[in-house]
Amino acid sequence: MINTHRMGDAHGKPLIEVCFSPAHYNLYDPKESIVVVADILRATSSICVAFHYGARSIIPVKGPEEAIEYKKLGYLTGVERQGEKIEGFDFGNSPFSYMDPAIKGRDIALSTTNGTRAIQTAKDAYKVVIGSFLNLDILCEWLKNQNQHVITLCAGWKNSFNLEDTLFAGALVYRLRNHFDFSYGRDTCIAAEYLYLLGRNDMNKFLKESSHRRRLEKLGIEKDIKFCLTPNTAPVIPVLDGNALVNSSVLAV
Amino acid sequence: MINTHRMGDAHGKPLIEVCFSPAHYNLYDPKESIVVVADILRATSSICVAFHYGARSIIPVKGPEEAIEYKKLGYLTGVERQGEKIEGFDFGNSPFSYMDPAIKGRDIALSTTNGTRAIQTAKDAYKVVIGSFLNLDILCEWLKNQNQHVITLCAGWKNSFNLEDTLFAGALVYRLRNHFDFSYGRDTCIAAEYLYLLGRNDMNKFLKESSHRRRLEKLGIEKDIKFCLTPNTAPVIPVLDGNALVNSSVLAV
Repeated sequence: MINTHRMGDAHGKPLIEVCFSPAHYNLYDPKESIVVVADILRATSSICVAFHYGARSIIPVKGPEEAIEYKKLGYLTGVERQGEKIEGFDFGNSPFSYMDPAIKGRDIALSTTNGTRAIQTAKDAYKVVIGSFLNLDILCEWLKNQNQHVITLCAGWKNSFNLEDTLFAGALVYRLRNHFDFSYGRDTCIAAEYLYLLGRNDMNKFLKESSHRRRLEKLGIEKDIKFCLTPNTAPVIPVLDGNALVNSSVLAV
Repeated sequence: MINTHRMGDAHGKPLIEVCFSPAHYNLYDPKESIVVVADILRATSSICVAFHYGARSIIPVKGPEEAIEYKKLGYLTGVERQGEKIEGFDFGNSPFSYMDPAIKGRDIALSTTNGTRAIQTAKDAYKVVIGSFLNLDILCEWLKNQNQHVITLCAGWKNSFNLEDTLFAGALVYRLRNHFDFSYGRDTCIAAEYLYLLGRNDMNKFLKESSHRRRLEKLGIEKDIKFCLTPNTAPVIPVLDGNALVNSSVLAV
């Protein structure tokens, strides 16, 4: 366990760690940590938008079958697989589809390829919060105030490393490094921060070569990608409360 | 499986991939790939030195008990745990300890914390070869001539990502990128190459903050680290043949 080597405690600051994919998550000890789940393209970005537009709750569900059960209970439903919306549900994984006034006050059941799975993976952590560039600054302020260890869990692509989630993790490290300590697991922090500093002036261009980006380009969602890389357009704090995400911030539109 | 999306084949070039740690290895399909195992500080560096000094074979073994059995058979033995040599064996994990003329023509049983475990992990690949900065150029030439897919398996630290193995993986990508294609798993390749390009002018300094480096500094092996980051001092090609590594190059001293 990486955290058995925790050093940060000696200085009285909580620790910040980065987990590159759910496949590495068992190397971390999340019991005393807030886990920030990041699936930048596009699940956690869309979740932030939905809360910014006033969704009351979002329940991460395993797949279409479970979403159908929630639909019967009056939930709105979002189901995405391989980057595409599944027929018969209200939303896919595009943040724009959640910019709908009709969402206000509603509960949503959501299943996406990587994002909701990562949320499930983290569910036993001290606390789970949703991260994206869209809520970057407010999330950092919130994390500073919690005074807890932080692990950013990159959702990745089918358990493997991806660049866009890593850039986001690096953005957090860059903003939080003075308020947190690194542990012995900090090589991922250092790498993520370096990559963020390399890419931050034009993340869109930086990601042009990346795998998930190319996969999504095939689906013609350039506009989504650009939006998901724009900081601070949805200042919300979606936290897991029981089996549902709710917005801890009072700034929803 | 990342390789089900293989793109490179379309262009007739083999693929190059990077696996950040043994925990991700099951996402790759090594059956048609040469796996380059890298444990830069210090197992794969030491293996290269041992072959450069004329070792006949090196058998990766699980632990001290198995090493003792080989000792009874006349093998030299190297056993390291937590960075330190284990009492009663001939070598630890310092490359300098293998710079011994007495090693010439001898067989060695070797067990290290991360390196030999990574070799075991890769043993069913099409071919397994040992990589380090010490054999960087000759290894790249050899890989170009094999015309096979290549996966660099970073040994990491107890299954987690580390910077020094990633820098080495990036050095391979940088040198081989014109002869190979990236697959959909290429985000790790891109990240590794970026980190290598950032660090290559002074890798020693670049790694100063890294976790394993700090762990090793405590053991007072600055000299080892500097040596392990020096390219091309041990131009050998250690490949796995059955259960033993042998040198495929004819350039041993």
